[in-house]
Amino acid sequence: MRQADVHRFALADPGDVSGLAGAIASGLIDPVEIVAVIGKTHGNGLVNDYTRGFLTLGLSDLLATALGRSRAEVTAKVPFIFSGGVEGVLSPHYSVFTIGHAKLGARPGPALAIGTAVSLPLAPADIGTNAQIAATADAVRQAMAEADIAPADVHLVQVKGPAPNLASIAASDRPCRTGEPGKLMAYGRAASALGVALALREIGEEYDLEAAVLARRDLFSSVASISAGTEVHANEVVVLGMSAAWTGPLAISHRTMADALDLAGVDAALRDLGFAPSPTLTVEETARLRTVFVKCEPARSGLVRGRRHTMLDDGDMDAQRHIRGALGGLVAGMTGETQLFVSGGAEHQGPDGGGLIAIVAER
Amino acid sequence: MRQADVHRFALADPGDVSGLAGAIASGLIDPVEIVAVIGKTHGNGLVNDYTRGFLTLGLSDLLATALGRSRAEVTAKVPFIFSGGVEGVLSPHYSVFTIGHAKLGARPGPALAIGTAVSLPLAPADIGTNAQIAATADAVRQAMAEADIAPADVHLVQVKGPAPNLASIAASDRPCRTGEPGKLMAYGRAASALGVALALREIGEEYDLEAAVLARRDLFSSVASISAGTEVHANEVVVLGMSAAWTGPLAISHRTMADALDLAGVDAALRDLGFAPSPTLTVEETARLRTVFVKCEPARSGLVRGRRHTMLDDGDMDAQRHIRGALGGLVAGMTGETQLFVSGGAEHQGPDGGGLIAIVAER
Amino acid sequence: MRQADVHRFALADPGDVSGLAGAIASGLIDPVEIVAVIGKTHGNGLVNDYTRGFLTLGLSDLLATALGRSRAEVTAKVPFIFSGGVEGVLSPHYSVFTIGHAKLGARPGPALAIGTAVSLPLAPADIGTNAQIAATADAVRQAMAEADIAPADVHLVQVKGPAPNLASIAASDRPCRTGEPGKLMAYGRAASALGVALALREIGEEYDLEAAVLARRDLFSSVASISAGTEVHANEVVVLGMSAAWTGPLAISHRTMADALDLAGVDAALRDLGFAPSPTLTVEETARLRTVFVKCEPARSGLVRGRRHTMLDDGDMDAQRHIRGALGGLVAGMTGETQLFVSGGAEHQGPDGGGLIAIVAER
Amino acid sequence: MRQADVHRFALADPGDVSGLAGAIASGLIDPVEIVAVIGKTHGNGLVNDYTRGFLTLGLSDLLATALGRSRAEVTAKVPFIFSGGVEGVLSPHYSVFTIGHAKLGARPGPALAIGTAVSLPLAPADIGTNAQIAATADAVRQAMAEADIAPADVHLVQVKGPAPNLASIAASDRPCRTGEPGKLMAYGRAASALGVALALREIGEEYDLEAAVLARRDLFSSVASISAGTEVHANEVVVLGMSAAWTGPLAISHRTMADALDLAGVDAALRDLGFAPSPTLTVEETARLRTVFVKCEPARSGLVRGRRHTMLDDGDMDAQRHIRGALGGLVAGMTGETQLFVSGGAEHQGPDGGGLIAIVAER
Repeated sequence: MRQADVHRFALADPGDVSGLAGAIASGLIDPVEIVAVIGKTHGNGLVNDYTRGFLTLGLSDLLATALGRSRAEVTAKVPFIFSGGVEGVLSPHYSVFTIGHAKLGARPGPALAIGTAVSLPLAPADIGTNAQIAATADAVRQAMAEADIAPADVHLVQVKGPAPNLASIAASDRPCRTGEPGKLMAYGRAASALGVALALREIGEEYDLEAAVLARRDLFSSVASISAGTEVHANEVVVLGMSAAWTGPLAISHRTMADALDLAGVDAALRDLGFAPSPTLTVEETARLRTVFVKCEPARSGLVRGRRHTMLDDGDMDAQRHIRGALGGLVAGMTGETQLFVSGGAEHQGPDGGGLIAIVAER
Repeated sequence: MRQADVHRFALADPGDVSGLAGAIASGLIDPVEIVAVIGKTHGNGLVNDYTRGFLTLGLSDLLATALGRSRAEVTAKVPFIFSGGVEGVLSPHYSVFTIGHAKLGARPGPALAIGTAVSLPLAPADIGTNAQIAATADAVRQAMAEADIAPADVHLVQVKGPAPNLASIAASDRPCRTGEPGKLMAYGRAASALGVALALREIGEEYDLEAAVLARRDLFSSVASISAGTEVHANEVVVLGMSAAWTGPLAISHRTMADALDLAGVDAALRDLGFAPSPTLTVEETARLRTVFVKCEPARSGLVRGRRHTMLDDGDMDAQRHIRGALGGLVAGMTGETQLFVSGGAEHQGPDGGGLIAIVAER
Repeated sequence: MRQADVHRFALADPGDVSGLAGAIASGLIDPVEIVAVIGKTHGNGLVNDYTRGFLTLGLSDLLATALGRSRAEVTAKVPFIFSGGVEGVLSPHYSVFTIGHAKLGARPGPALAIGTAVSLPLAPADIGTNAQIAATADAVRQAMAEADIAPADVHLVQVKGPAPNLASIAASDRPCRTGEPGKLMAYGRAASALGVALALREIGEEYDLEAAVLARRDLFSSVASISAGTEVHANEVVVLGMSAAWTGPLAISHRTMADALDLAGVDAALRDLGFAPSPTLTVEETARLRTVFVKCEPARSGLVRGRRHTMLDDGDMDAQRHIRGALGGLVAGMTGETQLFVSGGAEHQGPDGGGLIAIVAER
Repeated sequence: MRQADVHRFALADPGDVSGLAGAIASGLIDPVEIVAVIGKTHGNGLVNDYTRGFLTLGLSDLLATALGRSRAEVTAKVPFIFSGGVEGVLSPHYSVFTIGHAKLGARPGPALAIGTAVSLPLAPADIGTNAQIAATADAVRQAMAEADIAPADVHLVQVKGPAPNLASIAASDRPCRTGEPGKLMAYGRAASALGVALALREIGEEYDLEAAVLARRDLFSSVASISAGTEVHANEVVVLGMSAAWTGPLAISHRTMADALDLAGVDAALRDLGFAPSPTLTVEETARLRTVFVKCEPARSGLVRGRRHTMLDDGDMDAQRHIRGALGGLVAGMTGETQLFVSGGAEHQGPDGGGLIAIVAER
């Protein structure tokens, strides 16, 4: 039986690979078992965030050396999914996902299961189109099959897709969905989310999904978490769920965040895993958290629970920096943990103005 | 007997005075009874935040017209204390504090009591010095005496002091504590906080307080909340507490925030007033909140619960915008309310890396 | 004969009206003669820039008192056109335009002529549509007729139009051209610019101009300078040109800025007025400048003279803050003056990646 | 005889090393001859700018592979000096400096000469102290000696020093000059500049230079250009000057920038090299420019030529982003080139509010 594990490392700066390097050197992690790395870096999480690429370069270089392979071979096989933006109390970090053989005496499943896939390259003109939707859906199906996870047992699909900058858009041989890099980044996240929803049958095949991108906000996946960046050129997919084909001490839960204040959603996701916040976790409970994913989006109505917010009118600070900071405070307050993967840009990833929380923890 | 009341109004933009105008027109608020206005505006909360002055101009103009007095007479008597920065889920608003006669059948005290005072003008060279500390302490003592609040029954001292910009500093006839406007703003908040602590005997007279400003972080007030802005030229003080000499349905509680994740502190302050969050307030409970004050500061250790934060290394987004956004998420999550007076710049206002929460609500 | 005059005042902060107040008190300016005020304020020049509204409130209040009229009467007649953003060396200021009778011995015309007009109110759903194009064209024609300026003698048409924020867009009874406030602001500037071009016959009536908005960048006015802000609800228009029906010492010139480096264009506009920069103006020449308008736009190709720029990929600092700072440095370097009306958002106001410069000076 | 050469490469993103890679592959540059790389990257140029470290990693990796050495050996010998911040029209790029043997028929000297040196490591507590001043002065003397450049013939000393972040400051075993990372970065630039001035005898030995750091602004070097970043741990020094011991077609000039509008200074530096801007360079002249360095600082008086600037009051956009954008526009306007090394943070590097320009070009 397969057994999944997750190790989380602090990131002093985006070039700091000392955490994983030490874990490999000490034997804590066997580099052959690494199947994905997901983390939060220091940048702004927008088009001109180069901290994602910096960390990808450093970690892939480390892994290439450890495995005696080229960097290209490593990045073709292992998704490195980094999201920029650690506003407020959030702390830069990365989580390393491994698949090994069941340890002797391992607790019987169902347990945390991991599947990964990388789509074919996507050109700037593919971003936000049916091509990206279909490529994502295919990759999700492939990852689920590989990991023996049924659609109903999927708790998180983390995707990283391309975000062409202005130069790439200008150099495109075909027209892109928009000429504005920040907006095209949103189209890409949206199309990828609809691709996840399609693969999981959260939405049917009757829709014109390309037309629905950024338009039909009522169509969404409740387990998709999508990031984008200039540093990748294909959609990289990591599917996390529960499967009886896996063993080990880890489990995953998720809940929809109904809106940006949904502390009850956080509470429920924790309780699904046996935690009992009152109102916060104890230090011992916090230590059992392996990795936490949060997605949320500033409500396009301009209102949170009937009150005006200013996130979408602000020309100094991007709306995604606003929402990540707020959600970071809310989730860290209850969990006691600031190494959280909190990400904005939640188009079609939960209801408008909301999102999702997914938690991997020791049972 | 006196009876305090608090009405809160949404702010569409910093020039929007329609909330108070309507309340005066409808008779809900008698303008003669207004003793203070405290609110959060749309700006960045830093030196170049002009939304505070914009709202002060609009509201003082409205009140001057309603009272048949000049704007100068109004602002000399009524503190208008605005703090910029509504990051994340926070919502711009202002709270109008009134003192009237006890309504027939009013619940016996102790009840919420309000005292106000305005210091003599402070020059740029006074900011951060003993002159500001003493002026603040005097004003606090005066406001407490006026309101019959014992030091032990004070729950919040809200102060607004001057923040000279570069031109004012350059034009000063005496040297200022620093030539950097943002830093001088911090000196001013710090000195005012120590003045509050002195008046409330939270710290003794044995210290060289001018030397302690921004240096002795172990010296602090647990009820001070200080803002600063270019739009004021004296220290304006509003003291809120409980007093048996007052009546009415309102009460105030406060708790220290031990750090930026202290959801337990929020929970405790709510429970002090009879609320029982599980984990959040009900809609009916949220409606009983009249106004909520939160102060917090990014820990200068660079750590929150042992994890690195990036707030003080960020050159794109000021540390105060970071901390307000995080605390706004945390407190709004539990209370269900986004019209919160969340303010950064909490030097000597609670422990380093922490701050305070104070809540006025119907009992 | 009519004689135009322009006085420029420094702005310490957006609430500072001391410059004009002093000029009225000393008799330098007769408030009855004021026909327009145009200036640069401290804000970011984007949707959440409230410094424009703050200054409008202060100056209209001053003028209302001086004229014994209501603020509403004043703002209905006098355009107050403020653009936020004084990046780099730029200095906040405002220019007051007056029309008086020719002074005895005044130099014969042609001389600087001024016409103003205010359109009917425009709703959020009108922004960027034919309604705004037509309203602008009508207002421009009316202002030209009033001022006896022939289309060929127009050197600048300054327009200020509405910029609905998210709340206004969400409250609109009809769909807006886009739901994003910053983008709708661009639509509005673009439609207004095409309205100017239509009125001046720079483009013919054969085009579908609503479809051309932000799409046909080859269609533009070479004398339009458009700003937008939440603080206005109609298009306010000021036309500046030369007319034999006017007298006085002032003249205006303008040149197209071919791109963001077009120092030769600045040089040419100065030489048109008899200046001879070598490479800069002398102190005496600088003193003859009355007011300078500059418009420019980051090239959507991503290139300036074949080199990449980063303005449109930057998530921390808006592209308009970038371009204003650069143009401010370029024009201030040659003119020796930093009180310049430099404005971004130059859609259809000059060639893509370029803009215009217009200079009013003593002959 | 030695012959210096400079090649400049565009930077698509901070991970893009294709320019130098191609030049090495084609034989245009012999990697053995590379002695320094200096460039401008995409970040904000402040403490949390990781684009400098990203490019250093990529280029040192490229060079290590090309030379068959380790990355550590390469960075110990070759200064990689990157400054973040390409505001406005500026374009990301890097210049590669090489030293080779005189080509046959090379023009006799004096010609451009290059010397480099790297100081011993500097701890956070050394930043801004006599230790850093002395280390810089020693390195400058060593580089001048190596390159046979007399002090009077030095035109530019480019230095890159450490900028500890909050975590490094907090972990320091000795107290640092300040606990604020951005401020300590300024101390470091200032101390390095005074070290340059000392080595070049621009200031005498009679001063207490540690006390003069950020205090005695009248003490400065007229050829120092200092950057700092978290990615380096010693002071790296590149001295550029003219020397009869060198040959080749390249020359260097420099001029003090008296203030941020000093277009005349740019004009003079160009004329020193035989250019005759009227008012701009021709396309052919622009092509002769090899690399241009510009340093400038927002005047601490708050005034540029008697007019208020807002750079030091701005809480949204750092003063260095302001000043770089303005100077970029000014210098690019005259030179026609946007690949300029424009850098803020010019403490003790020219007069207060001013700085320097240095130009390397083909004679």
